[in-house]
Amino acid sequence: MIHGGDVYTNGILKGRELTDFSSNINPLGVPKSFIENIGEAVDALTRYPDIQYRNVLKNLGEYIGCPQEYFVLGNGAAEIIDLVIACHKSLLIVVPSFVEYEIDAKKWNCSIEYSYLKENISEDATLKHEHCELSYNYKDILNKLLNVEGVILGNPNNPNGNIIDKSEFQKILEYCESNNKVIIIDEAFIEFTGDKQHSFESLVKYYKCLFIIRALTKFFAVPGIRFGYGISSNACLLKKIREKQNPWNINCFAEVAARYVLKDELYIEKSKTWIRKERPIFLKNLNNISFIEKVFLTYGNYVLCKLSGITSERLYKLCLDKGFVIRKADNFRGLDKQYVRFAIKDKDRNEKLIGCLKNLEPRVKTG
Amino acid sequence: MIHGGDVYTNGILKGRELTDFSSNINPLGVPKSFIENIGEAVDALTRYPDIQYRNVLKNLGEYIGCPQEYFVLGNGAAEIIDLVIACHKSLLIVVPSFVEYEIDAKKWNCSIEYSYLKENISEDATLKHEHCELSYNYKDILNKLLNVEGVILGNPNNPNGNIIDKSEFQKILEYCESNNKVIIIDEAFIEFTGDKQHSFESLVKYYKCLFIIRALTKFFAVPGIRFGYGISSNACLLKKIREKQNPWNINCFAEVAARYVLKDELYIEKSKTWIRKERPIFLKNLNNISFIEKVFLTYGNYVLCKLSGITSERLYKLCLDKGFVIRKADNFRGLDKQYVRFAIKDKDRNEKLIGCLKNLEPRVKTG
Repeated sequence: MIHGGDVYTNGILKGRELTDFSSNINPLGVPKSFIENIGEAVDALTRYPDIQYRNVLKNLGEYIGCPQEYFVLGNGAAEIIDLVIACHKSLLIVVPSFVEYEIDAKKWNCSIEYSYLKENISEDATLKHEHCELSYNYKDILNKLLNVEGVILGNPNNPNGNIIDKSEFQKILEYCESNNKVIIIDEAFIEFTGDKQHSFESLVKYYKCLFIIRALTKFFAVPGIRFGYGISSNACLLKKIREKQNPWNINCFAEVAARYVLKDELYIEKSKTWIRKERPIFLKNLNNISFIEKVFLTYGNYVLCKLSGITSERLYKLCLDKGFVIRKADNFRGLDKQYVRFAIKDKDRNEKLIGCLKNLEPRVKTG
Repeated sequence: MIHGGDVYTNGILKGRELTDFSSNINPLGVPKSFIENIGEAVDALTRYPDIQYRNVLKNLGEYIGCPQEYFVLGNGAAEIIDLVIACHKSLLIVVPSFVEYEIDAKKWNCSIEYSYLKENISEDATLKHEHCELSYNYKDILNKLLNVEGVILGNPNNPNGNIIDKSEFQKILEYCESNNKVIIIDEAFIEFTGDKQHSFESLVKYYKCLFIIRALTKFFAVPGIRFGYGISSNACLLKKIREKQNPWNINCFAEVAARYVLKDELYIEKSKTWIRKERPIFLKNLNNISFIEKVFLTYGNYVLCKLSGITSERLYKLCLDKGFVIRKADNFRGLDKQYVRFAIKDKDRNEKLIGCLKNLEPRVKTG
């Protein structure tokens, strides 16, 4: 299993209900604004979608605040990641990160360099105590960019949730802009940071080197709908991507979802309130679990943890016995069987998971 | 506009309702069996689809009657066409046919040979009068296969609706099977022929050279949902295609549609009854329009016509004025501004279109 979210093999296909802490989906669920208007998609089923997706582009333009021609649409962020990587012969991948970057690069014979996150101690005042942090090695990224066509990195990064420090990143941005290199920033989780300032969306119009990947998937809780998009002012790169795409790649349900959820201010605010509240509590509670050695600081809706005295495989099985699916993180490059990732869910389910982990403490001690 | 189905530019985006005779969708509309169970898709929205799509493969296996490992799933037939073509360095395209074959081949630097349909007079007894027919040039196909890795053709073919004569095709089938060439048969419209015997699905298990393309799109009237599939017993080709695909390429609504519509016997029977009844009537009525010189025999739910005394562009505009969108066929290789394609719809709308064409007769005469 190379991805989270498999609630099928041990769950649905066996008629068993599992709580999924392995995929990072907003626990507030599908926005009502979409559900209430799903009839519009049902009515649209018998016709082909607009091959130019004019209304979807308008909706995105209003949400992000940039011209409609900056967008390219994908059947999930997966398609966008795949195609933007396909446009390059060599890329630097900042790791550990979403495993599809590497899979896609290999698929397209794109040669890969890696820049590893480095560990340091954060003193984030809002968390009231010290936290381990995995953060970008900006110097290393800049050095390695010399030999490749560009870089791909997550903001916030998956699986750990660190974000780009814009002042530290400025040198990289200027270098890439001047040297015709691409900076692909995967912002699939950006809305969970709770602060628009963390996104690079407002810089797209000034820097042609930027290519930002976004999706409805995580924040609007619709992984089943398949809708991702890329944002860039580099018309040449966008053209290359579009030429690789198939017609009608966005289904009518995704079209209608984009129409409603992107302007669902109530949902957006409620979600931000939830994550701002639950994230520090969840982090603190994980810190108190005896077999968790390190809890990494996160700006996302997921937490990377380093285990002690138990492997990720064993913890996965013990949690599964109790009905929880967690994410073993050993297939992220640079991590090993000491690492797991937990999604942050609503208060109730977070507490249940913490309770489960607490109960496992004696068993872990005895091996 | 290279495809039919654009009811947006002059219709929806201007708040105007148009009757679409340009895309060939079953007029019986979305099967109720799907609509009544759409809640299952809504419930599935917040989780990722099963990355292995085990239930969908089971549904297809039962529908087609072959092993689940013979299938590859696509975000519409468009994805399947694209990727199977991507696996070949040279292909023979039987034309005129769906324009995406050529677009995809060029995209992937797949070199193209063409085999043109040839015109002859059919004496189909069921139609009670002579009909022009465009049919495959089997000899030409066999000859040209020498120089390419395989052939792609429609069954029934789009835009004219002829089908493969299996006894004539046998030589080609044996030649390809013995010489490791691929035969890609696009059967997107096969159910409209009303007879399973016209399909090559039952031969897939005996001939590894066969690769059949199908979709829910046309017969089950869900172009908005995006679900296509390929069928082959060539495990090596299927593996190559799957390696090119992105994870979670099928959305949850398509998953649920496949679960219900494929076993909706009532819908399937009603659809076959409709097409068997309306097709000969529509053909006959088109034959009686003065500015239609030729009506080509079709086994599909669409009719190719050759015009006389009026261009497709002018007829398109005149029909649009009356609220009908028709398909100009001049961008099909081998056809020109004398050709148009009409979808076959329900009795009522067919009659309205025929009425509209009848009314245009005097205007066409005066130029």
